[in-house]
Amino acid sequence: MSADADKISKRDLSVVGSSPSRVDAADKVVGRALFGTDASLPGMLVGKVLRSPHAHALILSIDTSRAEALPGVYAVVTAADLPLLAVEGEDAIGEQQFRDRVLAGDKVLFEGHPVAAVAARTQALAEEALQLIDVAYEVLPAVVDVLEAMAPDAPILHPDLRTQSLAGQGETPTNVAMHFQQLRGDPEAGFAEADVVVEREFRTQMVHQGYIEPHASTAVWTQSGDLTVYATTQGTFAVRDHITRLLQLPMSKVRIVPMEVGGAFGGKNTSFVDGVAALLARKARRPVKVVMSRYETFVGTGPSSGTVIRVKMGATTEGRITAVQAELFYEAGAYSGSPVGSGAHIMFAPYDIANGQIDGYDVVVNKPKADSYRAPGATPPNFAAEQVVNELAEKLGIDPLEFRLLNSVREGTETIGGTVHHDIGAIEVLEAAKAHPHYSAPVGGPNHGRGVAHAFWGNWGARSSVTISVNPDGTVALVTGSVDITGTRTSLAMQAADVLGLALSHIKASVGDTDSIGYSDVSAGSRTTVATGYAAVQAAHEVIDKMRARLATVWDVDVASIVYEGDTFRASDDAEKQMSFAELAALLPQTGNTVIGVANVDVQDWGSSFGTHIVDVAVDPESGKVTLLRYTAVQDVGKAINPVQVEGQLQGGATQGIGWALYEGYDYDANGQMRNPTLLDYKLPTMMDVPPIDTVLVEVPYPNHPYGARGVGETPIIPPPAAIAEAIARATGARVCELPMTPARILEAMGVI
Amino acid sequence: MSADADKISKRDLSVVGSSPSRVDAADKVVGRALFGTDASLPGMLVGKVLRSPHAHALILSIDTSRAEALPGVYAVVTAADLPLLAVEGEDAIGEQQFRDRVLAGDKVLFEGHPVAAVAARTQALAEEALQLIDVAYEVLPAVVDVLEAMAPDAPILHPDLRTQSLAGQGETPTNVAMHFQQLRGDPEAGFAEADVVVEREFRTQMVHQGYIEPHASTAVWTQSGDLTVYATTQGTFAVRDHITRLLQLPMSKVRIVPMEVGGAFGGKNTSFVDGVAALLARKARRPVKVVMSRYETFVGTGPSSGTVIRVKMGATTEGRITAVQAELFYEAGAYSGSPVGSGAHIMFAPYDIANGQIDGYDVVVNKPKADSYRAPGATPPNFAAEQVVNELAEKLGIDPLEFRLLNSVREGTETIGGTVHHDIGAIEVLEAAKAHPHYSAPVGGPNHGRGVAHAFWGNWGARSSVTISVNPDGTVALVTGSVDITGTRTSLAMQAADVLGLALSHIKASVGDTDSIGYSDVSAGSRTTVATGYAAVQAAHEVIDKMRARLATVWDVDVASIVYEGDTFRASDDAEKQMSFAELAALLPQTGNTVIGVANVDVQDWGSSFGTHIVDVAVDPESGKVTLLRYTAVQDVGKAINPVQVEGQLQGGATQGIGWALYEGYDYDANGQMRNPTLLDYKLPTMMDVPPIDTVLVEVPYPNHPYGARGVGETPIIPPPAAIAEAIARATGARVCELPMTPARILEAMGVI
Repeated sequence: MSADADKISKRDLSVVGSSPSRVDAADKVVGRALFGTDASLPGMLVGKVLRSPHAHALILSIDTSRAEALPGVYAVVTAADLPLLAVEGEDAIGEQQFRDRVLAGDKVLFEGHPVAAVAARTQALAEEALQLIDVAYEVLPAVVDVLEAMAPDAPILHPDLRTQSLAGQGETPTNVAMHFQQLRGDPEAGFAEADVVVEREFRTQMVHQGYIEPHASTAVWTQSGDLTVYATTQGTFAVRDHITRLLQLPMSKVRIVPMEVGGAFGGKNTSFVDGVAALLARKARRPVKVVMSRYETFVGTGPSSGTVIRVKMGATTEGRITAVQAELFYEAGAYSGSPVGSGAHIMFAPYDIANGQIDGYDVVVNKPKADSYRAPGATPPNFAAEQVVNELAEKLGIDPLEFRLLNSVREGTETIGGTVHHDIGAIEVLEAAKAHPHYSAPVGGPNHGRGVAHAFWGNWGARSSVTISVNPDGTVALVTGSVDITGTRTSLAMQAADVLGLALSHIKASVGDTDSIGYSDVSAGSRTTVATGYAAVQAAHEVIDKMRARLATVWDVDVASIVYEGDTFRASDDAEKQMSFAELAALLPQTGNTVIGVANVDVQDWGSSFGTHIVDVAVDPESGKVTLLRYTAVQDVGKAINPVQVEGQLQGGATQGIGWALYEGYDYDANGQMRNPTLLDYKLPTMMDVPPIDTVLVEVPYPNHPYGARGVGETPIIPPPAAIAEAIARATGARVCELPMTPARILEAMGVI
Repeated sequence: MSADADKISKRDLSVVGSSPSRVDAADKVVGRALFGTDASLPGMLVGKVLRSPHAHALILSIDTSRAEALPGVYAVVTAADLPLLAVEGEDAIGEQQFRDRVLAGDKVLFEGHPVAAVAARTQALAEEALQLIDVAYEVLPAVVDVLEAMAPDAPILHPDLRTQSLAGQGETPTNVAMHFQQLRGDPEAGFAEADVVVEREFRTQMVHQGYIEPHASTAVWTQSGDLTVYATTQGTFAVRDHITRLLQLPMSKVRIVPMEVGGAFGGKNTSFVDGVAALLARKARRPVKVVMSRYETFVGTGPSSGTVIRVKMGATTEGRITAVQAELFYEAGAYSGSPVGSGAHIMFAPYDIANGQIDGYDVVVNKPKADSYRAPGATPPNFAAEQVVNELAEKLGIDPLEFRLLNSVREGTETIGGTVHHDIGAIEVLEAAKAHPHYSAPVGGPNHGRGVAHAFWGNWGARSSVTISVNPDGTVALVTGSVDITGTRTSLAMQAADVLGLALSHIKASVGDTDSIGYSDVSAGSRTTVATGYAAVQAAHEVIDKMRARLATVWDVDVASIVYEGDTFRASDDAEKQMSFAELAALLPQTGNTVIGVANVDVQDWGSSFGTHIVDVAVDPESGKVTLLRYTAVQDVGKAINPVQVEGQLQGGATQGIGWALYEGYDYDANGQMRNPTLLDYKLPTMMDVPPIDTVLVEVPYPNHPYGARGVGETPIIPPPAAIAEAIARATGARVCELPMTPARILEAMGVI
């Protein structure tokens, strides 16, 4: 982002800063919105995926002949139906793993690993056909614990895997894909300066994004080999990249049409069934729809990493943190690539700590490959770091928010990983939390406790495209390539509205397919309202510029003399010449056709967002049940484009963080069988579990966005477990270091059981 | 069109001028293409329209209560469901007629006039519900003959209709909506100069466009009132205009998605069921699909006008036409607006005639309102004028092509209507026909005859939009707003290919919906390959310009120093600096995102196209059956972008003209009941009836198109009836002056019956 011309002074705002309803709200409430499963094509078949029942096994053979012979079955596919690898050597390993995740080659690496797929006339026939596929497995010992997977005698998932580290590539087979180290100052000297040191180990389980809509994909080919896929995804272009890579197709042959997304939270950045649907549809020569079951959604997608995290932190009696040291062990799942780097990046980022060392380990285990989940990799290390911060504050007798303020980062502070903070609202957020009535209200009574935690998240920018075309009646169509998972059609239209001088109701915002709109990265990283908003503003400016140029020909004046203010074009040197947006829009058809503003941007400079959460809990000392009594989320949101939507992000993030804290977690047995792959056994928080969540929007503007907006969606999922753990500790005197903090674990920590 | 920069010299062409297969061909051949009836949405209902059995009647009442009470019926609509008229006075008449065509108000004006519509769970229920709608009619006398409708005592369709003419507005109720007169020179003096005068009266019937796919429309609303319509149409924006006008909606609330079109030929410029589908879907709160039956397609759409045409023409013995006089009486159908003006425009346009008078009459009758059919209004007056030209040539003993050459228009000739010919290929076409081996081959034998006819058609330009975006792998997506009814995805991509230096296979061409592409007029008037092609060329140039600008930043050189030749960008002052299109495309993502070229044009200056057809026939003297023995179509096509497609246009147009000549025509009884509303009784020409049609492409380039293209689709439907009539006359000695020239009419002309 650059041009000052794109900045909009506050006095110009009228739509931005108001809180209209999301354009998609009513449809979703009444059930008229069309989600991934609602794609419908004539002659469509049902696709189903055969998944490995074993967490670790060799595939000796797959015999599909009985399934193929079943009447009503149109196609059976296995990895053998994929094109030959187009690369060799080192590149081939990554490429093979990419395919193996879609359809296993010679080995399955987790329960639920796709092995084959069928397309049949009905769901019942498809399921019957799955039973008729004969797979011969040689079952291997599985490893599901991250520390056990690091042991020298652990079962090895990938015989060719070697540890990548600063020291180079290891020499022996291993499950440790990567080890990195971040170092700042002299941790040993720092700990020597400390008056108090706290050291603890924490554990967290894989957690699912918990989107209600399962993955679904509907694929259809033309006779000449053009593929269209109706996908539920965070990024249509990501699906296109996935399919063109998998099937080795030119990008022009693949069109992805976005359906509404019924929850994603990072879990729909990756394609899981699009490639299979495309393969089946090609072989069946008919449209094929694949929809995951809930079981498949648990075992066959990309949850967040389970972790083991060790933290050691020291501080002086004056409350100055002198040193930190941490080890982060992240389950990558079956293939390397956990968000351990992100975890290390954010872990101590709110604090100015002179001496620190962080070691991160990316470890493969026999579970689904970990993927993004809202602030990927951030909640577990925050749970660890913030508990230790709270414990230190408690030991030092310093108010926990005061302790954070004493150590807070400011403009120019460098983190342990080397990031330099700029244009942040860290202090403002902590001050706002401290000043909030919740924080000074008395804590209820016995077994009641209050906790706080504080978090940092750095947003993403990246590539976005927006097109705005003007209709003759003065309304406009705004098309973006950014899939709307959080209300961004509304927030993007709002940003365009103020540039165009239009009421929001005059703007139809929609998400285009990959042929009709320019490249746009996934809607993730809290980037859409900011980066795509930047594109919307730029496209709107191009519309106004083109309309000014047209009006210059109509008025026969120099375009430079035409200004646009409010909703009116004026000639700066002739007070009589003025024309409204709608009037000029009506003239466009007879003066050369409509005008279209296009912006294809790559936003390189993006902001960050700090959040502080305050929570009051009551713990039943007999059952260990935790009741949340009051919850306040304070966050540095930059300019809130749509404050109610921003509040919704804070409330939704906090709710998911509450799920991490108290309820959620994959439960695997030693053989890698998931014991709770249903929504009955894997508990998501419901309205019954969550109190009203108060929000405080601290609007420290981000100077590189035209309106000063920041991404806000990820920060609020980070602090809830640490804040709730602290509240439990204050209520019970017992500190729980494993997520989820179930009644059993709380009672155990309390020494009751 | 203007810029010389957009012109492309012949040496650059490689894709243009070749004949790749249409991108949609394979899908259509194997049945995978999705036409209007293939739109599919979950929970979709079936919509059916109740139509008047009477050609002229007052609607006294409509009782829908029994239909509404039928289980499975979700909505019943009548004109009462339309919004109140938003205009008053004079404007209200046109607006009321516009609506009455969709759903009749207080009167029905033709058999098949829509009266009500229902949406129900199944087709059977919908049809049952139609039976339960009670309409009380007061039947009025009908008038179906154009001359009878002009009689003073004729039944009056619109009590408020007054004749518009040069003399102003008439004062008495009438069925003559308009009378115009074109006059040039002194016809009386011209006839006085003539040595020979021929005078005849001709009759033609309403003819249907004969598209195989019936009209179909599927509508779905969001809860917040956004409408999407899946339409089979020649213009998505025309459907949008229709619906926003009918339902008084902002354009931003209506999105039209184009389906493949199974034939159109002008008959899908107008919306017939889209408005009803939208109304039903809104009331039913569910998606509704309406598909016409063949009966509805005949009686409920917009065929071409039936006509009575009188022609008088005189010439000297030297073969110079000295004067013409013509009267054209066109059936407008139930509402005014026949293409009589177009008929007058083209009738004598191939000839330089100093003295002429044409009187045109637009007359309402109790038949469906006439709409466009390929070269609207042109075939009947050509049938009339060219027969008279042939008869004059015969009487003068001059070769009919020589006679035409003697009188042909040239650069700068002005027609009777005042059009000045420019950049035409009239002489070249006549010369090519004369030189063709067919014309000099001996005519077979007894009862065999050869005829020729010559025709002019002026094309259309208008508004078109094209967007081209570049994929990282060097392929591109080309999106147009012009619906593809003739292979234009292919011909547009071809025109972009040569600017971009890409193989055609690297370009994915598609038709966008009304939100994702800029305004584009209907695909009609032979305009798409020319005008939208102009837009495609301009968008491709913008892509190259934006890529040059990007490369300038990469190379850090002045953009003006970067040239693009073939498929390579080069720095003009540094021979080492060069990069292919694909290489630069791969760099776009990391240098600021993709680039998109956009063109929204309004092409004001367009060309015309002359065609001469030669036909040999055999007439069975006993049965009157005509067999076509040999057929040659010669046409001035400008630069043929895709010669095989151009040949297909000539062959398709000639085939439909053969239908006009020998087989097709609405047969109404005196009460306005269509007697042949099935494809069994209304005969379309089939492969059995049509000989191989030779084509000669005369490439006189049109200078205002970048490649010199002309619109070619309409001209070839014009001359077949006149050419065949002449061949019949030569074979039998009898001149048939009424279409279709059925065996009965031929035997009658021969005096056999």
